[in-house]
Amino acid sequence: MKKIFVIGAGRSATNLIEYLLEHAAENQWKVIVGDYNEKLARQKVGDHPSGEAIFFDANDAEKRQQLIASSALVVSFLPAHMHLGVARDCLKLGAHLVTASYLTRELEGMNEAVKAKGLVFLNEMGADPGIDHMSAMRSIDEIREKGGKLTAFKSYCGALVAPESNDNPWGYKFTWSPMNLILAGGQSAAKFIENGKYHYIPYHRLFSTTETIEVSGAGTFEAYANRDSVIYREKYGLQDLPTMFRATLRVPGFCEAWNSLVKLGITDPNYEIHQSDQLTYREWVEAYLPTNLQGSMEEKLAAYLDTPLNSPLMGRLEWAGLLSDQHIIRKKGTPAEILLDLLLEKFKLGEEDKDMLVMVDKFEYEWEGKKICRTSSMVTKGIDPLHTAISRTVGLPAAIGAKLILQGKVQQKGVQMPVNKEVYGPVLDELAELGISFMEEEWVE
Amino acid sequence: MKKIFVIGAGRSATNLIEYLLEHAAENQWKVIVGDYNEKLARQKVGDHPSGEAIFFDANDAEKRQQLIASSALVVSFLPAHMHLGVARDCLKLGAHLVTASYLTRELEGMNEAVKAKGLVFLNEMGADPGIDHMSAMRSIDEIREKGGKLTAFKSYCGALVAPESNDNPWGYKFTWSPMNLILAGGQSAAKFIENGKYHYIPYHRLFSTTETIEVSGAGTFEAYANRDSVIYREKYGLQDLPTMFRATLRVPGFCEAWNSLVKLGITDPNYEIHQSDQLTYREWVEAYLPTNLQGSMEEKLAAYLDTPLNSPLMGRLEWAGLLSDQHIIRKKGTPAEILLDLLLEKFKLGEEDKDMLVMVDKFEYEWEGKKICRTSSMVTKGIDPLHTAISRTVGLPAAIGAKLILQGKVQQKGVQMPVNKEVYGPVLDELAELGISFMEEEWVE
Repeated sequence: MKKIFVIGAGRSATNLIEYLLEHAAENQWKVIVGDYNEKLARQKVGDHPSGEAIFFDANDAEKRQQLIASSALVVSFLPAHMHLGVARDCLKLGAHLVTASYLTRELEGMNEAVKAKGLVFLNEMGADPGIDHMSAMRSIDEIREKGGKLTAFKSYCGALVAPESNDNPWGYKFTWSPMNLILAGGQSAAKFIENGKYHYIPYHRLFSTTETIEVSGAGTFEAYANRDSVIYREKYGLQDLPTMFRATLRVPGFCEAWNSLVKLGITDPNYEIHQSDQLTYREWVEAYLPTNLQGSMEEKLAAYLDTPLNSPLMGRLEWAGLLSDQHIIRKKGTPAEILLDLLLEKFKLGEEDKDMLVMVDKFEYEWEGKKICRTSSMVTKGIDPLHTAISRTVGLPAAIGAKLILQGKVQQKGVQMPVNKEVYGPVLDELAELGISFMEEEWVE
Repeated sequence: MKKIFVIGAGRSATNLIEYLLEHAAENQWKVIVGDYNEKLARQKVGDHPSGEAIFFDANDAEKRQQLIASSALVVSFLPAHMHLGVARDCLKLGAHLVTASYLTRELEGMNEAVKAKGLVFLNEMGADPGIDHMSAMRSIDEIREKGGKLTAFKSYCGALVAPESNDNPWGYKFTWSPMNLILAGGQSAAKFIENGKYHYIPYHRLFSTTETIEVSGAGTFEAYANRDSVIYREKYGLQDLPTMFRATLRVPGFCEAWNSLVKLGITDPNYEIHQSDQLTYREWVEAYLPTNLQGSMEEKLAAYLDTPLNSPLMGRLEWAGLLSDQHIIRKKGTPAEILLDLLLEKFKLGEEDKDMLVMVDKFEYEWEGKKICRTSSMVTKGIDPLHTAISRTVGLPAAIGAKLILQGKVQQKGVQMPVNKEVYGPVLDELAELGISFMEEEWVE
């Protein structure tokens, strides 16, 4: 009997826990699910004979070590900054580790020690990061194996609302961390490389620098650059690749509207608004307009954004409540918090709504004197409120990764992300069986 | 014999130390000057009979306490974050304290304890912060005393190069911390209040939101908003003032040119440029241009900045070296560092150059049914490389403040900034005798 210790029973862990419980009997697993919210853990485990739900405080080092010591594998769905303590315990006490979070330098630094103990610490086993790496590496390895020379790789991903549930003018609902939407792109300039030249896009230009792409079976989307694309050359073993670009997908019109919020300056998390609860949203937005403009608030806003008064953009801003006389509720909020308060309601995913994850990889490579284009795309929708596209695509790769490790199918030991065929191959195959599959197209240019 | 312990013998301490030594005999002072660079301390003290230069490591707590214990007053010209430890020792060991740095919350928190011990901790005794507060409070108190009702206060300050030493197209040379220029305004949106309404200016709009002002005897300047103006209402006891605005002065043309650097995104201190030493400055700037532009690098840049190819703006960028084939020297620099490396040489204040500090306060108040405008302005130039305008205006207020405290002329005990008449009155009077004086103009609108 092997014990799997799952830390965190939140929304994205639903499908992880379900999968592990389903496969527990045949693999002789016992699945312990710990959460600070014990009730949540109980809901997720139910009365499954292979499961056990417990109260767990991740900051209780003694209890943590006790539980990890008796486990063969730990899946940590804690907030990313809490993985390191868990990882150190896993190394000391000899347990494998799976996370869906970005591999950090600190974790990478443990690689040799983890290897020496014959352990596997598999990170970035979610949707993005996760499935994006796996599908990318499958294509990259295939192209390499047949002797092709990759010249460009562009990768697009969007966590969106399904078209049939899209009933607002922004084409967006929260399917994932709402604050991540507000802050997206604001930490640093976006970076990519094209034809061997680096490019940097500062935040104030990010949402106006978009490209349009068509995705078979899902429609038309806008894409804006996603953080640092350049580091992925190294992660994918493509140090000399002349063009590498990663982007985020949105429904057309969203980027123009979001750009107007950036242009106003109301996505900033770095300072507080004076006595914000004495302002309406309309007054707050007006406080960001240049003082030399004339006319009504709407006229000034339209002039500042260089858009007609009756444009779709103005319609989106009005729909969002930014022109309303509703009072701000926070006494001392940052612009980001005040904006989030407003959008939380507007962009709420309803009980009946379905979310949708879209991923597209575009490759260009030279092969036998020809220039080949290849597109690999995946569109998956949520099934019900517990089985959203995001929860499934984050939870299932981690669960399958855990299974592969416990079945001894991961030969490569150490700290890693799923760029090796022995991991991405079986994970993508099983995801396809579960309805999360990629469609490939290739043509000679 | 009273001991004054001066910590820090850097550039801005020159005039402070000189003043204290000059006034030492008549006041029966002994002036101890400590610096980690002992040679620097010696240079500043020379062989003055009332002075003593010592090696001093501010992190050596034992030595620090020993020196403070035997001192009546400490002047700390350490970097701002190091004042707190000194202040705690002063409180414990019963010494007064003077700094030229912003009064922090931590220091403010010591107010009651400092009062109880009958001590004075006088902060913000430099140019800005310092003289700006003093001249503002003098006018504010005068207007109040005669029964006027203040309706607007706008304050402008610029550390500039004197017109006779201005020989570059930006009209700027470094007279103060160069990195402060690069980062100016980037931490947070600027805030001010006008006619009772708050206004916020995000960084990407800061340098294009300027006003032009004339300063008698100094010429025409551009002003851009300086951080949080609103907090100064409280600091000056003007909680209900409907208009409060603080701004930084530059020579005309500078703001448009700096705005283009912000628009490019090359003032950012928050990320590193990949392999920056493999790029020329020209290539680096090109990496920030939108990829859909056509033509030569100059043509693309001019198009992005919406300026003619032969405009003064393009001339300034070329003069600064941003179009040059010179290689970047840093292997891994942030944009801010790479830009600083370039400008350090270009904006260097030469041995023969004179700097200039310009301060202007503009008030509007109602008095006997009339609307009165009042302007109070100060222009002071450097004398020689040791007696720059900045060094004098930072060092002399602190020195005079120290004198007032030791002469028992500061009745108000506790942690403070120079907003009380008993401090600003004699300091401004003595500064005027030293040639740093304000000119007042008043007229009925």
